[in-house]
Amino acid sequence: MRYFVTGCAGFIGSTLTDRLLADGHEVVGYDNFSTGQARFLQQAQDCTRFRLVHGDVLDTRTLTAAMAGSECVFHLAANADVRFGTAHPRRDLEQNTIATHSVLESMRLGGVRQIAFASTGSVYGESAVIPTPEDAPFPVQTSLYAASKLAGEGLIAAYCAGFGLQSWIFRFVSILGERYTHGHVVDFYRQLRRDPQRLRVLGDGRQRKSYLYVQDCIAAMLTAMTGSADRVNIFNLGHETWCEVNDSIGWICAALGAAPEIEYSGGERGWVGDNPFIFLDTRRIRALGWKPVLSIQEAIGRTVEDLRTRCRVGDTYS
Amino acid sequence: MRYFVTGCAGFIGSTLTDRLLADGHEVVGYDNFSTGQARFLQQAQDCTRFRLVHGDVLDTRTLTAAMAGSECVFHLAANADVRFGTAHPRRDLEQNTIATHSVLESMRLGGVRQIAFASTGSVYGESAVIPTPEDAPFPVQTSLYAASKLAGEGLIAAYCAGFGLQSWIFRFVSILGERYTHGHVVDFYRQLRRDPQRLRVLGDGRQRKSYLYVQDCIAAMLTAMTGSADRVNIFNLGHETWCEVNDSIGWICAALGAAPEIEYSGGERGWVGDNPFIFLDTRRIRALGWKPVLSIQEAIGRTVEDLRTRCRVGDTYS
Repeated sequence: MRYFVTGCAGFIGSTLTDRLLADGHEVVGYDNFSTGQARFLQQAQDCTRFRLVHGDVLDTRTLTAAMAGSECVFHLAANADVRFGTAHPRRDLEQNTIATHSVLESMRLGGVRQIAFASTGSVYGESAVIPTPEDAPFPVQTSLYAASKLAGEGLIAAYCAGFGLQSWIFRFVSILGERYTHGHVVDFYRQLRRDPQRLRVLGDGRQRKSYLYVQDCIAAMLTAMTGSADRVNIFNLGHETWCEVNDSIGWICAALGAAPEIEYSGGERGWVGDNPFIFLDTRRIRALGWKPVLSIQEAIGRTVEDLRTRCRVGDTYS
Repeated sequence: MRYFVTGCAGFIGSTLTDRLLADGHEVVGYDNFSTGQARFLQQAQDCTRFRLVHGDVLDTRTLTAAMAGSECVFHLAANADVRFGTAHPRRDLEQNTIATHSVLESMRLGGVRQIAFASTGSVYGESAVIPTPEDAPFPVQTSLYAASKLAGEGLIAAYCAGFGLQSWIFRFVSILGERYTHGHVVDFYRQLRRDPQRLRVLGDGRQRKSYLYVQDCIAAMLTAMTGSADRVNIFNLGHETWCEVNDSIGWICAALGAAPEIEYSGGERGWVGDNPFIFLDTRRIRALGWKPVLSIQEAIGRTVEDLRTRCRVGDTYS
């Protein structure tokens, strides 16, 4: 099968690409390298079943040409800079909503019928129902990032109804693991490398988060796509447990042998749109036989170890 | 108070403008006249508290300048051509989603804090819960129109969270009344004027719809905005009853003295994305003391009478 992966040089995109190639598939990867890293594709580039196209998903013409002949699109290209939405109020709209429309148009124009989409658990806003199921009460958005992903979901579902596409929409918790490039683990890692005595933490450190290891995330996506064949298939992907940011800090410090003084910015939210407790009900994906292999602590451990390795070999981590 | 009304030359926008002026407010109206009609503003133009600005909501610079000094925005400008979304797959995105972003940016740049938004009951897709409350289960979109309005809702809520705006989001059923310019009543009216012996109907005529009279709709919006002061206030606006499309046909034919042979296109949906039964739970707005004055039959009667009057005086109805 030939897959088309947008954002193929990103954290999840490159890991997925390697997995699809390992499974014997063809992969056409598409990336504009605005945040993607060529080195993440070193392994893929050694495979004759991989082809890389430099391009922007907003460039529908180039995208359509690159996509021709693929059977299924993994649309992972996105602005994933969740925290800084209000500093760039048009970025999420462009890179997440309008870009998703461009992908759908390319599919329509090229006759590509299947799409898997990386959405986010933050589309639930501050849900009153926890753990939050896929059919939770109609949420109110709390961040430009989540609003832009919700809009992408809506476009995909409407294209499925209007043009006969089939979709799998995945609402992720935060994903961790090798090649992870941004988010709290990198933030803490950077700070502690700079000054192991001091760590500044957004919020009160009591925010509860349910991280998932990237290989578990990819396994879940593939499980859903073979096990669920509705026109629109929506799945929460997350861990069945959670940790506090303070737990995470403890594990990172232990891995680095650091014992910093911690300064909390205070408040239960790390930033506008941060949610003090995201915890998804994952019974739907579990019913298909999937469960995560790594614990949250193990996922954080792998992430820190990968950051250390990449820094040792002179790599950057952003 | 100074209100800013986008789409001020449209069916609902012009009627709202007249009502706000009658209540003693100032109104700055904004329209690009792509579908708006200058004659709908004849009454408003006689009032010194009204100012009209020709402009497109996508032109953020012109919009921001026009909006300066207003306290509250009614954002009614939209592509309301629900049925033909799939024929123009980018139109809803541009005119409803990106346009709403432009309005929010103008508000942010100009320090305007309040927005009322015309959304749609079709954001509920094909809800399993009928009557459908505002906190119905997270819906799956079935049309590009609804998806574009859902995206607008999400953007508004995110701007409220990120930039301190306050919003009233109204999920309308179809609105009828004087100045109504498109939709099934106009379609049927046109057909019967052309040939009173024959009427073609999309679907099986059994679709159940809950229309609302435009003055009742406006009264509901104003009631909500004085009676509800959360950061994001979401209200269904609709009638407490419904009719079948066949009922509507009967009333229209009676008003016109026509007895056509009816040809149904068949199927329970009139078009892709049509919903055979939209019926909103309106307890939230009713709890504030609002209720519709006109029945659905009366609203259809007024609409037909207005179409006849406009045609008699040589006006067009679209």
